[in-house]
Amino acid sequence: MVGGAEGSFIGPIHRMAIRLDDLADLVAGNFSRNARRNAASGAAMRLDPARVYGDWRRLIDAEADKIDFLVVCTTNETHFEIAKAALEAGLDVLCEKPLSLTVAEAETLERLARRKRRIIGIPFTYVGYPMIKLARDIVARGEIGKVDKVVMEYLQGSFRKADRRNSWKMDPRIAGPSCVVADIGVHAFTMIEYVTGLDVKSLLADLSSFASGGLDDDASVIMRLDGGARAMLATSKIATGEENGVRLRVYGAKGSIHWDQESPNYLTVKYPARPDSVFRRKAPYIGEWSPVSVASSRFPAGHHEGFVEALANIYDAFVSAVLTRRAEDLPSAREGVRSMKFVEACLASSKAGAIWTKI
Amino acid sequence: MVGGAEGSFIGPIHRMAIRLDDLADLVAGNFSRNARRNAASGAAMRLDPARVYGDWRRLIDAEADKIDFLVVCTTNETHFEIAKAALEAGLDVLCEKPLSLTVAEAETLERLARRKRRIIGIPFTYVGYPMIKLARDIVARGEIGKVDKVVMEYLQGSFRKADRRNSWKMDPRIAGPSCVVADIGVHAFTMIEYVTGLDVKSLLADLSSFASGGLDDDASVIMRLDGGARAMLATSKIATGEENGVRLRVYGAKGSIHWDQESPNYLTVKYPARPDSVFRRKAPYIGEWSPVSVASSRFPAGHHEGFVEALANIYDAFVSAVLTRRAEDLPSAREGVRSMKFVEACLASSKAGAIWTKI
Amino acid sequence: MVGGAEGSFIGPIHRMAIRLDDLADLVAGNFSRNARRNAASGAAMRLDPARVYGDWRRLIDAEADKIDFLVVCTTNETHFEIAKAALEAGLDVLCEKPLSLTVAEAETLERLARRKRRIIGIPFTYVGYPMIKLARDIVARGEIGKVDKVVMEYLQGSFRKADRRNSWKMDPRIAGPSCVVADIGVHAFTMIEYVTGLDVKSLLADLSSFASGGLDDDASVIMRLDGGARAMLATSKIATGEENGVRLRVYGAKGSIHWDQESPNYLTVKYPARPDSVFRRKAPYIGEWSPVSVASSRFPAGHHEGFVEALANIYDAFVSAVLTRRAEDLPSAREGVRSMKFVEACLASSKAGAIWTKI
Amino acid sequence: MVGGAEGSFIGPIHRMAIRLDDLADLVAGNFSRNARRNAASGAAMRLDPARVYGDWRRLIDAEADKIDFLVVCTTNETHFEIAKAALEAGLDVLCEKPLSLTVAEAETLERLARRKRRIIGIPFTYVGYPMIKLARDIVARGEIGKVDKVVMEYLQGSFRKADRRNSWKMDPRIAGPSCVVADIGVHAFTMIEYVTGLDVKSLLADLSSFASGGLDDDASVIMRLDGGARAMLATSKIATGEENGVRLRVYGAKGSIHWDQESPNYLTVKYPARPDSVFRRKAPYIGEWSPVSVASSRFPAGHHEGFVEALANIYDAFVSAVLTRRAEDLPSAREGVRSMKFVEACLASSKAGAIWTKI
Repeated sequence: MVGGAEGSFIGPIHRMAIRLDDLADLVAGNFSRNARRNAASGAAMRLDPARVYGDWRRLIDAEADKIDFLVVCTTNETHFEIAKAALEAGLDVLCEKPLSLTVAEAETLERLARRKRRIIGIPFTYVGYPMIKLARDIVARGEIGKVDKVVMEYLQGSFRKADRRNSWKMDPRIAGPSCVVADIGVHAFTMIEYVTGLDVKSLLADLSSFASGGLDDDASVIMRLDGGARAMLATSKIATGEENGVRLRVYGAKGSIHWDQESPNYLTVKYPARPDSVFRRKAPYIGEWSPVSVASSRFPAGHHEGFVEALANIYDAFVSAVLTRRAEDLPSAREGVRSMKFVEACLASSKAGAIWTKI
Repeated sequence: MVGGAEGSFIGPIHRMAIRLDDLADLVAGNFSRNARRNAASGAAMRLDPARVYGDWRRLIDAEADKIDFLVVCTTNETHFEIAKAALEAGLDVLCEKPLSLTVAEAETLERLARRKRRIIGIPFTYVGYPMIKLARDIVARGEIGKVDKVVMEYLQGSFRKADRRNSWKMDPRIAGPSCVVADIGVHAFTMIEYVTGLDVKSLLADLSSFASGGLDDDASVIMRLDGGARAMLATSKIATGEENGVRLRVYGAKGSIHWDQESPNYLTVKYPARPDSVFRRKAPYIGEWSPVSVASSRFPAGHHEGFVEALANIYDAFVSAVLTRRAEDLPSAREGVRSMKFVEACLASSKAGAIWTKI
Repeated sequence: MVGGAEGSFIGPIHRMAIRLDDLADLVAGNFSRNARRNAASGAAMRLDPARVYGDWRRLIDAEADKIDFLVVCTTNETHFEIAKAALEAGLDVLCEKPLSLTVAEAETLERLARRKRRIIGIPFTYVGYPMIKLARDIVARGEIGKVDKVVMEYLQGSFRKADRRNSWKMDPRIAGPSCVVADIGVHAFTMIEYVTGLDVKSLLADLSSFASGGLDDDASVIMRLDGGARAMLATSKIATGEENGVRLRVYGAKGSIHWDQESPNYLTVKYPARPDSVFRRKAPYIGEWSPVSVASSRFPAGHHEGFVEALANIYDAFVSAVLTRRAEDLPSAREGVRSMKFVEACLASSKAGAIWTKI
Repeated sequence: MVGGAEGSFIGPIHRMAIRLDDLADLVAGNFSRNARRNAASGAAMRLDPARVYGDWRRLIDAEADKIDFLVVCTTNETHFEIAKAALEAGLDVLCEKPLSLTVAEAETLERLARRKRRIIGIPFTYVGYPMIKLARDIVARGEIGKVDKVVMEYLQGSFRKADRRNSWKMDPRIAGPSCVVADIGVHAFTMIEYVTGLDVKSLLADLSSFASGGLDDDASVIMRLDGGARAMLATSKIATGEENGVRLRVYGAKGSIHWDQESPNYLTVKYPARPDSVFRRKAPYIGEWSPVSVASSRFPAGHHEGFVEALANIYDAFVSAVLTRRAEDLPSAREGVRSMKFVEACLASSKAGAIWTKI
């Protein structure tokens, strides 16, 4: 693992997710550029100090033949070069989003992975939720008919309080040219394409900076999907009082789908002329709709799962791809490239006054 | 009353709202162009048959000196001429939205009302909800700080089923140049300006027609408010499974407000560093925040109020204005003109490819 | 109307409910024992002063031949004698609950009504909710199978604050021998028998007095229903923070029903092996299950109804019974007697140490 | 670990919970009496086959000096003898509930543990939820005043479908003399005493057997707590459509607490004269109320935690007790004895016709 020292937000979550299903062991790392923090993190994980490296390049050099894959949990600006080096060293890579700072970089990684026959996994964690997998399968089976409209939001209020942990996200040298869109907008975008099975073709975006001194911290996006459907996305870091408000609604000709990350074990389908159906995670009937939803559920219905299980599902798909050399239901380089195209289109559209922009 | 025959959607609701507080008696009407239906409606209301007119012009001629005000519940294309005739005859008018088919007409009515010193009331019913009045007062008192973002939706799925009652809304000769925006978008727009106390300055809109053969039945709108706030509006008639999904969220620098018409007796305020507050209609503490919210509540906390009480609140404000000759907290000609400007801006923006348009 | 002066809790609600559907006119009354308040109330309702009486006996004497029915909204201890006098004078009576202070009195009224062929209506308002009517019909159609378990609650916190309006409810001379059971427990009891279609056969009750100085303000009741089902009831006036928490769940062999008065326009049915179904008031499919639920709904699905509509439904059933001389779906003398038996059984059981008591 | 083979309900959850925080390694086990299943389970966990034992006695003999503690996940009837043997061998024990089949056995274990200075941990998982710890601390700080009333439910519908995994719970030779009370009622009981800080002094219980051929599968219990508070408990295995409905409400003189396991990251406090407060797990203000709630939360507010984290919190407290030799916030022998007293009191009360029984 590169990055993700003890005390960071995402590192410990990754380690818990890895351990949950016991599919892999963390054996080596370069957790921080700060030597003391790096060593302390390795010690806390009871790693062999010799395998705790002060530099990610040395980690890759020394470990490429010993490890099965590399996990990248660093800040955005380093994703590309680390992932590139790892792929070149023959490693499969699970890399945090955004995969890179530009579309060009993401495409480079995609090509490199294809050429080296390596697996890229990206923790678009929300597509790891069993009920999102169910949603995708319900749509794919035609239950709600042709999709016409998506109303999506991913709202946080985190920039309203002094949250030192996140402050690098406001720094373009580290975060890259986009903040809210690249940080959480990409999750929303990926969910839309995942659940509807449709590509976004063009969009217009209105980005604002209310609290972050320059980088976008609020975005309004209107999208056109393949086949004519419309999608709206509200995403923000200044939505005061919101913690992690991920809510997806998909309206088709025959029904609609409703999911809220704050109540992640349920999925509602509404119909024009039938009672709403509330699906419960791993209930006996889920298998009829979505075997993968059942397979990605751990606990009996009613015993709630949350974020760590969703991330563990990404890891399961990734480890399975590493073992079988075939990615299945894994957010990968394609999603990395698509999401970077989304980021660049939002930036370009907004800069030009919110005009329609191809993606 | 003109329009609103028995069996129509809105007519009986108006009559219930009028009766609820017993502030006025319905004494005369021209309920339908269909003579038989007109007579039957009058009879069902036990009106003097002599005061049930076959034509609204005759109604105004005969009744202008006898009645205190006229209620207009007809289809959109007739609002302007009926309201105009009534004002010219010296009557106060409560007229269904949209007030007219164009901004010019609405402004004509506004000027006419001012010149004749007549009252115009418009049943933007949602601003009649006690919790929306509370929301406005909470914002006005600075509790959530400067408003930066509004996320608004008004979603219906009614065009997904054959609903004959609504079919005229798809006919531009009757409904006018806009369907979803003029029919329900104006409610949402009025709520935004009412609750935030800010004017919308410009907008861009992307209108679509999925199920109605031409007129807009789905709209995505991005707005800029006075002072820089952004608002997003999703409004639709093709949001399958939605019945009357009116949901308002206002994000300020210090807190946010959340209201959902499907749970209208509650209002949630969320803060960055305090527990969320759930306000309950007419609870003992509401008066500290909003005397008007208390005054517009009828039943004790916990005994739920809904749509008819909200409409009755509009009537109360209107009748009070009729009696005192001073409108207070009444959606009136100004709101009628503003909402028509909103409609025209949406149509113009969308036609030009969703470009920023002044309002 | 007897009782229900302006400023009382229930009187104005009754008048609104009466007006809502315009089925009856209030023409005479004795609203208060306080002469000034009585006169002022009559004036506020624009009644003929000659028909505003200082005494309910004079009202009955003078009006028995002129009015169609009498509404009794007085305090509990007077219900019996007023209702009795009205029935003897040949009047139909709508009388607030509890119908009387004892079973014997209630049975006297039941017999008297039968003998005089008069209608008694009792505003057990909750059975007036369209979704409770739907619940009853769903159960009656066997959709949830044989009922085995009911979990019912009616929780208020009103005795936690000084609420002068309710203080008479703590006075046994006015309220009678029971407070919470007679005041709101009877609503819950009536709902259980109404929705399940089963009679309660025996019960044990544990009554407490936490805040009211003697009369029961908290009750825990376990009941056995005809056929072996069990029901639990928690009802309280000291459930701090609860406003009017009426929640009903009925568990059958094949499914269960869930209703919450705080969200009265929805009813959920849960199944062991199918998604939960959420029924929405007056949605297109409700008629297949319960024509009476549709008939007792006024506004389109999504436009919320609440307490006043439920009470108006009781009035509609009552007026219809008055006109047709046949009560249908009207809580009447039978429910009055049953609910008084429930009250007496609770008091007797609790006094004896919570032993099983027949009802 | 004894019991908990792959494919069992609770075994894999325990292993995930153990791994989540990486506080212990599973090194030896006797997972099943079925030799093949036992070996396969050990292999699936990549254990040294030499440490996968065919008999729990041999496991204890061989491993007592090598392992730090024993986890017991077997069926009920074996808990006592395994726990007893482990304690006698000097091992700390984490044993599934119910700790034993009788109070006498539980007391024996309690005494034995005290004498041998060993730690007993019992996974009353629900007291591991961060919001239940917050609830306890809110009550302890006097925020809701003196507790007067508890309304508790733990409702499942699992006996309504053929669920082979649970069928042993209907067999008194394996499950012991009680089913629903011993299996899930004890969770509810433990939560009541944990959150209120009050002991149950007496109770009356009405147990029924609707679907399980003898053992109780439905229970209604009324309790009196130290100081006079009343508690009601509805617990059932035949509440069709319920998955794992654990809901706790505590009403005090000044406020009330509301928690629902289906939405475990929130806790609502309601007041008579202030807006309801909704507390969110790990929000910035939680630490002011409950440091232990913060310490037992892993992910940032808004990233939901569920069942596995709650169980991991029990393990954390247990491992911490093992290391420090001091149990803190750990459900232990005392809770095991108390909950068995609850079970015996329920059985005795119900058998005698639901009479008041000391506990």
